[in-house]
Amino acid sequence: MTTTLVNGVPANCIDVHDRGLHYGDGLFETFAVINGEPALWDRHMQRLRLSCQRLNFPNFLGPDLALLRSEALSLCSGETQGVLKIIITRGSGGRGYRAPPPLSAQVTRILALYPWPDYPMAFWSEGVAVRVCATRLGWNPALAGIKHLNRLEQVLARSEWDDANVPEGLMLDIQGNVIEGTMTNLFVVRNGQLLTPDVSQCGVAGVMRSWILAYARTAGIPSAIAALALEEVISADEVFLCNSVIGIWPVREIMGIPGCSFQVNGPITSDIMAKLRDSAVS
Amino acid sequence: MTTTLVNGVPANCIDVHDRGLHYGDGLFETFAVINGEPALWDRHMQRLRLSCQRLNFPNFLGPDLALLRSEALSLCSGETQGVLKIIITRGSGGRGYRAPPPLSAQVTRILALYPWPDYPMAFWSEGVAVRVCATRLGWNPALAGIKHLNRLEQVLARSEWDDANVPEGLMLDIQGNVIEGTMTNLFVVRNGQLLTPDVSQCGVAGVMRSWILAYARTAGIPSAIAALALEEVISADEVFLCNSVIGIWPVREIMGIPGCSFQVNGPITSDIMAKLRDSAVS
Repeated sequence: MTTTLVNGVPANCIDVHDRGLHYGDGLFETFAVINGEPALWDRHMQRLRLSCQRLNFPNFLGPDLALLRSEALSLCSGETQGVLKIIITRGSGGRGYRAPPPLSAQVTRILALYPWPDYPMAFWSEGVAVRVCATRLGWNPALAGIKHLNRLEQVLARSEWDDANVPEGLMLDIQGNVIEGTMTNLFVVRNGQLLTPDVSQCGVAGVMRSWILAYARTAGIPSAIAALALEEVISADEVFLCNSVIGIWPVREIMGIPGCSFQVNGPITSDIMAKLRDSAVS
Repeated sequence: MTTTLVNGVPANCIDVHDRGLHYGDGLFETFAVINGEPALWDRHMQRLRLSCQRLNFPNFLGPDLALLRSEALSLCSGETQGVLKIIITRGSGGRGYRAPPPLSAQVTRILALYPWPDYPMAFWSEGVAVRVCATRLGWNPALAGIKHLNRLEQVLARSEWDDANVPEGLMLDIQGNVIEGTMTNLFVVRNGQLLTPDVSQCGVAGVMRSWILAYARTAGIPSAIAALALEEVISADEVFLCNSVIGIWPVREIMGIPGCSFQVNGPITSDIMAKLRDSAVS
């Protein structure tokens, strides 16, 4: 079975001079695949298009997105439940940071299909324990928000622990604000208001985060993007994590902080999880 | 002629699941090759070893460095003048930031030989004009100093201009301090003292920078690592850029800043350039 396409062709390798390898000069999107269909496709493509603009990617416009969709559907065909990762790089280039001229350049597109991760069902029904990572997110406004391939901070943070019962760690920025998990966005509920950290200095503007913010607006749930100190997370009424693959995990406790536990089936978390289930996007 | 070795074997491609591609989870070193010999080998290996420790790289100890050297010498054999780039990644891994367990992991080593860049001789003899980049370096203390593969800021900065007569741009950090060029480190001379920016929040601790600092100590040139505002660079007596390939380029002027020009053959710059020539390390 083909699980990887490189520029439309089944392949296990990429050019050793690809700028994705040399500089992390690229972007990625990770999809839940449900019954052969990559979920939230349009939202992912919207972010990908915006991210390509932020990085001045050449020749990556409408027609390429249609090509990407046909390749994704062909790769995911017959897959009941899985994960699709799409990587787009600026293509191959000589030595040096300078990108090839846009007109001569050709992006590399990589589509890879992975098995569904085997997280226990209890992560959804009973919530998860998370830890606080020591690795801080730097401030990189030129890169903040987009899902680029420069992910060493997440790798370092994720290497801080090895415990299958603790699936995620919270990352603070260099000023001590809580920004996100290593692979998830964070929401808290305080006094009936849904809050998620600002990602204009660092962090990823997740597709599931944007789905939740959009739903909150239509459902009349008061919501805001805000700076969140760790103390404000600790004293929140409800806390949850989200991404395109897991959907939503309620947070049960923050490890290492005595007495810190949260209502797992809080009203706002439950409402959003139910809507997500009904929408079948994760 | 073989110009690329992947794990010791001539190859043009790497595994599509390599963590160097997916996360920039790797390091690189760039060498001037002179008469078949990669210059400043020991200094490069010292930085590589330290960087591997910073990133918790598995299984990369003494014996691997000897292997790396034998592969480098074999690739560079007969090359009068060229550039060698060595990339070390954490190897292949599944989807997800979590690294494979160290004992089962195998780094990927890529050695690539490139032609010598055709910069005009005048860049050394008459100095270079540089610009000030709009792209700022973020603060990422967990990654600062090491030469890792997360290089999108440098790519964005280098894409700001396209003029072969302007070979470099200065990058400021998010607080407005001048840190380095996109591919070079920066030194200034003020009141007889040699200064280079601190790279503990961002920037690369370059091998040529460390050679120059070591030489300054032995030669009795007063030197210090310091925060440098753009105004302090503008009002400096001498300014130069360095890296392992170019050695030293005196800076002649900073474009866009009226009246900003520097003494190209200043005493300290000339002294260090002469020593570098005598040492034949670039």
